[in-house]
Amino acid sequence: MNQKIVRVAINGYGTIGKRVADAVAAQPDMKIIGVSKTRLGAEAYVAQDRGYPLYIADLTKKKAFEDAGIVVTGSIDDMLGACDIVVDATPGEVGASNKALYEKHGIKAIWQGGEEHDVAGFSFNSSCNYQDAIGKQFVRVVSCNTTGLCRLIHAVDGACGVSHVTAVMIRRGADPHVVKKGPIDAVVLNPATIPSHHGPDVNSVLPDISIATMAVIVPTTQMHMHAITIELKETTTREEILALIAAHPRLGLVKAVTGIVSTAELKEFVMDLGRPRSDLWENGIYEASVSVVGKTLYLFQAIHQEADVVVENIDAIRAMTGIVTDPDTSIQMTNESLGFVAIGSE
Amino acid sequence: MNQKIVRVAINGYGTIGKRVADAVAAQPDMKIIGVSKTRLGAEAYVAQDRGYPLYIADLTKKKAFEDAGIVVTGSIDDMLGACDIVVDATPGEVGASNKALYEKHGIKAIWQGGEEHDVAGFSFNSSCNYQDAIGKQFVRVVSCNTTGLCRLIHAVDGACGVSHVTAVMIRRGADPHVVKKGPIDAVVLNPATIPSHHGPDVNSVLPDISIATMAVIVPTTQMHMHAITIELKETTTREEILALIAAHPRLGLVKAVTGIVSTAELKEFVMDLGRPRSDLWENGIYEASVSVVGKTLYLFQAIHQEADVVVENIDAIRAMTGIVTDPDTSIQMTNESLGFVAIGSE
Repeated sequence: MNQKIVRVAINGYGTIGKRVADAVAAQPDMKIIGVSKTRLGAEAYVAQDRGYPLYIADLTKKKAFEDAGIVVTGSIDDMLGACDIVVDATPGEVGASNKALYEKHGIKAIWQGGEEHDVAGFSFNSSCNYQDAIGKQFVRVVSCNTTGLCRLIHAVDGACGVSHVTAVMIRRGADPHVVKKGPIDAVVLNPATIPSHHGPDVNSVLPDISIATMAVIVPTTQMHMHAITIELKETTTREEILALIAAHPRLGLVKAVTGIVSTAELKEFVMDLGRPRSDLWENGIYEASVSVVGKTLYLFQAIHQEADVVVENIDAIRAMTGIVTDPDTSIQMTNESLGFVAIGSE
Repeated sequence: MNQKIVRVAINGYGTIGKRVADAVAAQPDMKIIGVSKTRLGAEAYVAQDRGYPLYIADLTKKKAFEDAGIVVTGSIDDMLGACDIVVDATPGEVGASNKALYEKHGIKAIWQGGEEHDVAGFSFNSSCNYQDAIGKQFVRVVSCNTTGLCRLIHAVDGACGVSHVTAVMIRRGADPHVVKKGPIDAVVLNPATIPSHHGPDVNSVLPDISIATMAVIVPTTQMHMHAITIELKETTTREEILALIAAHPRLGLVKAVTGIVSTAELKEFVMDLGRPRSDLWENGIYEASVSVVGKTLYLFQAIHQEADVVVENIDAIRAMTGIVTDPDTSIQMTNESLGFVAIGSE
């Protein structure tokens, strides 16, 4: 499939799908051949505004779309027949039911972290296992939190070895536009049992890492926050860790001099930087929090639930189609195409 | 000062002061001789309703209070002249400025955790160092979070030895009645640097414990949540830890069968139990979260910021005045007088 321009379909033009579509459209070596919606709504207008051909799940609804001024190009089946690879960004655990359809069309497919590992049999992170994904038909890009953990842990492990990770995830309750979810005034254990799914999920990418995770949900929409403790195999210094972060293409350093000490201020900063949809694609590691005590590293990092996996999806497309076999090259292409330089790395 | 009934004044009849006043009034060996307010407001009516003599900081305001139907008994100076011990529950860091006044009256004084350790030179927790407080003139009852940490850590240390504690505190942004504070949609590092003040504060009670703490503030009012990791010196089992918690007079076990997995549901449960002001005086340890992996203990505990120190203040009064010298006896008296049996200990 070593063609020049990879034809990409987005099945599910929602929170993740619309972001991946724009990121695909920004790449020199891939293009959007279509996006899909199940229901008429604001995002159908956004797709049309962007010039993405719109396909719908149920063609009996075509007239309703067209009465609303939305051009419908065809069915999802039509869309899948026209692509090399589909990014499944349907709601969590819906995606698995689409697998037979993708197999029927003989296309490659990428699922998101809301699906189980087994749907694809391979869980992907650009910085950790890009080369293992080369040529694969099916890949799952791990969830936002797992992506953020994998990037950090893999980088630290490479520099000074990781004996054990303990991570507490303070999760946003809902995305900003989601008006029907809570909690409105509670800290909710997610789950009450330990570990949360994040530890095992990290092991789906980094099988040799010892990790325990605990998670709660809180009443905020902006980003997740991770309180991280990493036991190191070798001694290091705070300065070495800061240098490691600054040099990493997907780890951002929220510098102490900015005065930013929350998720909301970080979101405002990213908005001011002019990022599309105020997206923080990188881990937002708070410089002031980076501490090395003996052989233990402590830090806080913010993870933007809507954004960090977007760039991973782009790299997954390159790995699976084999159009780029070197991870660093793909990561650089993805970042450059979006004008994305990780914060704090200047 | 081995008199039968200790005369207690409450300087600052607010969130903590009003709760301590009611708890004092419930004890057989102490009585409220007065409470103080600076400004007229709803709590002045509550004090009058409870029958507590009200003293005010500025007697020039006496007419305003009386015009509002509130009887003023005298000045704070008058109140201090009539008591054996004062519980200072004025706002954080105001209390220290009252020390000279307490010294002038030659009375004993208890400060709250919002003050520095040095104001009293002794930081108190009923379960950890009651006997060291016997006869002391000045004592500081540590903050709600530190109280919750000390109870748990001391109990676990006694049972199987504590090598190291890592605690992430997910703090409520404001108390339920506080309408002017945030955050409304953010996770705020508190502080961005590591450790938070809680670790050193635990060491003011338990100097030999190795502990690292990280804290964030989130948009909720109900309770704090702690994600706790304790490295143990000796092997134990989950069952032994559960038994330890169930047997402890100030550690509550939120049983898994209740289905409670959040702070809000726990608050509702405590309200249904008929506790005054829905107060959770004990640590709320979620049974489902208690996990022992190798020599590491993990758990979540909820800490009710308005309540857990109240019972500690009562015990501090007994220790300082010497009316009860055995900690278990005082803790039992305090609990029984409030009809308080830690949840999950049946």
